[in-house]
Amino acid sequence: MADYRIPFSNRSHLYTDAEIDLVTGLMRNAKSLTQGVHQQTLETNFSEYLGTNYSFAVCNATAALEMAAQLCCFEDGHEVIVPAHTFTSSAYPFLKHGAKIVWADINLETGVVDAAELEKCISRQTKAIVVPHLYGYGADMVEIVELAKANKALVIEDVAQAIGVKVAERKLGTFGDIAVFSFHDQKNMTTLGEGGMIVVNNERFADVIPMLRHNGHCNYEMEREDYWLPAMGDLAVPMLEGTHLWPNNFCLGEIQCALASELLKRVDQINVEKRKRAIKFIDGLRNQSLLQFHRVNSERHNYHLLVAQVSGGRRDQIIRALAYNYGIQCAVQYYPLYRYPFYQSVGLGDAFCPNTDLFFDSMLSIPFAHSLTDSQIEFVRAAIQEVVDSV
Amino acid sequence: MADYRIPFSNRSHLYTDAEIDLVTGLMRNAKSLTQGVHQQTLETNFSEYLGTNYSFAVCNATAALEMAAQLCCFEDGHEVIVPAHTFTSSAYPFLKHGAKIVWADINLETGVVDAAELEKCISRQTKAIVVPHLYGYGADMVEIVELAKANKALVIEDVAQAIGVKVAERKLGTFGDIAVFSFHDQKNMTTLGEGGMIVVNNERFADVIPMLRHNGHCNYEMEREDYWLPAMGDLAVPMLEGTHLWPNNFCLGEIQCALASELLKRVDQINVEKRKRAIKFIDGLRNQSLLQFHRVNSERHNYHLLVAQVSGGRRDQIIRALAYNYGIQCAVQYYPLYRYPFYQSVGLGDAFCPNTDLFFDSMLSIPFAHSLTDSQIEFVRAAIQEVVDSV
Repeated sequence: MADYRIPFSNRSHLYTDAEIDLVTGLMRNAKSLTQGVHQQTLETNFSEYLGTNYSFAVCNATAALEMAAQLCCFEDGHEVIVPAHTFTSSAYPFLKHGAKIVWADINLETGVVDAAELEKCISRQTKAIVVPHLYGYGADMVEIVELAKANKALVIEDVAQAIGVKVAERKLGTFGDIAVFSFHDQKNMTTLGEGGMIVVNNERFADVIPMLRHNGHCNYEMEREDYWLPAMGDLAVPMLEGTHLWPNNFCLGEIQCALASELLKRVDQINVEKRKRAIKFIDGLRNQSLLQFHRVNSERHNYHLLVAQVSGGRRDQIIRALAYNYGIQCAVQYYPLYRYPFYQSVGLGDAFCPNTDLFFDSMLSIPFAHSLTDSQIEFVRAAIQEVVDSV
Repeated sequence: MADYRIPFSNRSHLYTDAEIDLVTGLMRNAKSLTQGVHQQTLETNFSEYLGTNYSFAVCNATAALEMAAQLCCFEDGHEVIVPAHTFTSSAYPFLKHGAKIVWADINLETGVVDAAELEKCISRQTKAIVVPHLYGYGADMVEIVELAKANKALVIEDVAQAIGVKVAERKLGTFGDIAVFSFHDQKNMTTLGEGGMIVVNNERFADVIPMLRHNGHCNYEMEREDYWLPAMGDLAVPMLEGTHLWPNNFCLGEIQCALASELLKRVDQINVEKRKRAIKFIDGLRNQSLLQFHRVNSERHNYHLLVAQVSGGRRDQIIRALAYNYGIQCAVQYYPLYRYPFYQSVGLGDAFCPNTDLFFDSMLSIPFAHSLTDSQIEFVRAAIQEVVDSV
């Protein structure tokens, strides 16, 4: 089936006239198209939005995770705990930068990791813990940070799917030592399809990130008489805790940065609208027991994605019915990372994560982009109702 | 001096109404904002433009160089020859991926490396040669490829500054095994400030690049009954010559890809206009002997940058006079890489490259963006005339 009436991968959201005009205006009049004033403004705006000190725009969230992995300064034997139920980018950058991955299981009800599951994975070698706030739901950050502190482990929040979400009245991304955000096409705000942020809570990390992001470029510390001598700018190896880190080029263009600042003004509204829709959708399917949703009517969930657990081994049957009879394309996420040939071929194919297996094998992810109209969403809901009534 | 009448870093070019409308239209109507049809179309268009088989859009040219370095599959002891007179991204990705850098000198007249200089650096350990076509001038690719073949070395063309330029009637980027292009803010075509391409000449490389670029994602080889089983897509370690390569996320968004396709239609025209202006500029400064330009009135030079050698140790004096008396900001490029703390701290601070030293110490780079008006360019030319007449 090539053409679905409701494909799974719709654009997350449309752009307002003001957002389009902003881009048009900058295409005409911006003095610089990269590494300029709009990046600085975005970083200030983002820190203010989040309630943090140090934010840095990057080309995508994987780039942010690569830098997060670098900031960990892994040494031989260091371990990083990552739930096996997540997108691959939450995991592979840490392998790439020298850590051993220890797979954590998830909480079956929430679909995200919790302190109890993480605690089982802690060892004296644990250097960092990665916490992906999947689907838009905020993990138990208070307990997780407490556990990490007691074990001197860094906490890296993967907030790619959960911008604006709050736990204990605090926005996600402010709990961990490092947090990453995504402005990818599918996220609740997108900077023309690709983009991201890395946020850190301390100056040591903040000092080194600009060099990690932009080819090792740095300013001269000395006063110079001539701006071109000894050279236009300096170039040094980013150093952290005595470790040489390699630079990268992870820059995000000015137009995308300016657009992010603009979108930041309404991402909370998008979150509210998605949550309202999700609650209505879930409540509208109350008279059935085949699908169990994770219903959270608070700022702790932005319903980036709308997913359900299907009981009785009926998941595949339901997806087929929705696809063939209604043209609705559902998805299934996230394949336990240890099942992929990628992780198997690097010795990470074994894991005991029963919840991860069960969650994946019975989960259903429903098309739920903000760009879908109310009637499209209702069409999907009604179709699901018909399908569950008939199986 | 904060505000120059003519700063050095102007935008390379403005956008036409058609280009702006294209972006606006996609912001309104694109079905997907990344990894879609516009990327595929751009890659087809780019291969056709260049006369090659395999082109892949990436987020910037450094990312392309990182992948180029990965494709070399360096083993212990392998060397890569890089001219020390280039932007740092032509060099550091190769270090990062395990090669030892051997600094080549440049030809003093052209400012780029040639076969004679490269030959001095060849050893039995040489795995690859990096050839940056700096300033928009095409290096002697016929001789360089011959030398590389005789020594079984890969050739990597860094065409960041020289898109559309021809040597021996063939476009740059079609000579080497791998070539990289930049769509950065300062280049003759820019995809909203950041962007790039990697081009390869063989299927072995082409097969692995999509996985290197996009997190190791790949399609299932088997026919599948259900699109979501075993998972929505597969994930494997990119393999080349028995070597495991790490994936990255170097994707370029759809709007930027579509814009690149559109810009490709007029980049030759931009090149022609810049060359015409450069020749007029150079010829308009004929009655002086202080500045020597590299005058090439053919498709072998696109005058991405307009640079001169200043004789008599007068370079800094001229820059000061232009800055303070006329508000014209010149630049000085490229600081010999071995002089930077970055390369010194990784044991690459020593080199015998007299031309590289001399070229840098006496060079002047004149503001020359396509976005400058004819009268701004004439203002710069006349100012230089006055300054050289007075010193």
